[in-house]
Amino acid sequence: MTYCLAISVENGAIFASDSRTNAGVDYVTTYSKMHVFEPTEDRLFVLLSAGNLATTQEVLNRIEVDLNRADASVNLRTVNYLFEAAEYIGRISIQVQESYMNALARSNISGESSFIIGGQIQGQPHGIYMIYPQGNYISASPETPYLQIGETKYGKPILDRVIKNDTTLDDAARCALVSLDSTIRSNVTVGPPLELAIYHKDTLDLSHYMSLNQDDEMLTSIRETWDLGLKNAFLKLPRFDWEQVIDKDRMP
Amino acid sequence: MTYCLAISVENGAIFASDSRTNAGVDYVTTYSKMHVFEPTEDRLFVLLSAGNLATTQEVLNRIEVDLNRADASVNLRTVNYLFEAAEYIGRISIQVQESYMNALARSNISGESSFIIGGQIQGQPHGIYMIYPQGNYISASPETPYLQIGETKYGKPILDRVIKNDTTLDDAARCALVSLDSTIRSNVTVGPPLELAIYHKDTLDLSHYMSLNQDDEMLTSIRETWDLGLKNAFLKLPRFDWEQVIDKDRMP
Repeated sequence: MTYCLAISVENGAIFASDSRTNAGVDYVTTYSKMHVFEPTEDRLFVLLSAGNLATTQEVLNRIEVDLNRADASVNLRTVNYLFEAAEYIGRISIQVQESYMNALARSNISGESSFIIGGQIQGQPHGIYMIYPQGNYISASPETPYLQIGETKYGKPILDRVIKNDTTLDDAARCALVSLDSTIRSNVTVGPPLELAIYHKDTLDLSHYMSLNQDDEMLTSIRETWDLGLKNAFLKLPRFDWEQVIDKDRMP
Repeated sequence: MTYCLAISVENGAIFASDSRTNAGVDYVTTYSKMHVFEPTEDRLFVLLSAGNLATTQEVLNRIEVDLNRADASVNLRTVNYLFEAAEYIGRISIQVQESYMNALARSNISGESSFIIGGQIQGQPHGIYMIYPQGNYISASPETPYLQIGETKYGKPILDRVIKNDTTLDDAARCALVSLDSTIRSNVTVGPPLELAIYHKDTLDLSHYMSLNQDDEMLTSIRETWDLGLKNAFLKLPRFDWEQVIDKDRMP
């Protein structure tokens, strides 16, 4: 499994991903799911991937091959809009899936992958797009400023509460880490290291990139502070009318 | 969709459920998913149901019919252990599903249902069991004191953080409401009224039962206090090392 998310707010975008892959429960490995492309100085793309690992790797290889081919009809250097990059990757994803479809179907294995691509092309607004396994894609919006792929549910409630279009990039990055850490806690097939990238709009360069191990100081501090904060929030909840005495020593 | 959960702690058990059912997104109705059985004075059962509504209703009808039949080989009055009640309901569930299996398969509709049954039979410990759509069942344990059916993911993180075997019943009930409310916020097919039942062990009677509407005072108060508590917990998270100034007026 996998959990990747991207957040697009007024001032830029956040990308975050875990690094665990598994084929069944008895073959668990670590692969980065965050891929940065800066094919020319006027553009920056961050690609997040979830789903069948062979599919995502072949999609990445084809993106690289297209960038190196002078005669490529379309690649990440030639697209004029972010949505064209989404369309291009969706098309490659479908081609890769179709080439193994029959063999995978015989083994009852899904070759599906989904992607998030975001960033900016000079002169265009920054943004993020989610590419479905079927190759079509959607963009985030000011009302729904985040997109998720993989194991999305455990980490969604905090995003719904915190992320707005005017959230600062640093707050959005913190929220992304909380969302990832909550998911890791509930699903063992999502795991560290966590990758986090912060993009300030119109800079065409990542302002921060980090890969955080399980015992990373910042991650540990966020995890412990959040756990304590939730427990304190729980203790402050109103009592039922039959509860007379408030025992300050009680759990959690 | 549906979200039901039960929590079994040292001092008793909590049962909680939403009341929304839907057939597609354009046919949404309200049905109670919590069913209390007190067939004799020496036993109390609470049954929670999720899945195909026709299946769960027929299972409930058959339970009632068996209770009214003097010649029933097994019913909720004759079982000697809680696990026998789980086995009995699993068997009925399978029978009901099998009787419509072919017709449902032709329409590509799932007739599956899952259940949670809990309570106590005099002389036995209290407990909770989850019955899978296949009719087999598992019990909660001191290490895993809760069981969920339906839309389980959004409401799981808070249970994992708060619920221990020695959690008080009132805290467990509060946590169940938070878990349900978080799920309602993220999935529109889970909705009020919420039903909550509290069972103190060895009493063979519910100490509290309530049905809470969306605008119920206690539920509103829990929802608002929890939302504020989470936002405060978020504000207290550690800053990245590049964040120099802490702006106290910032979001959320």
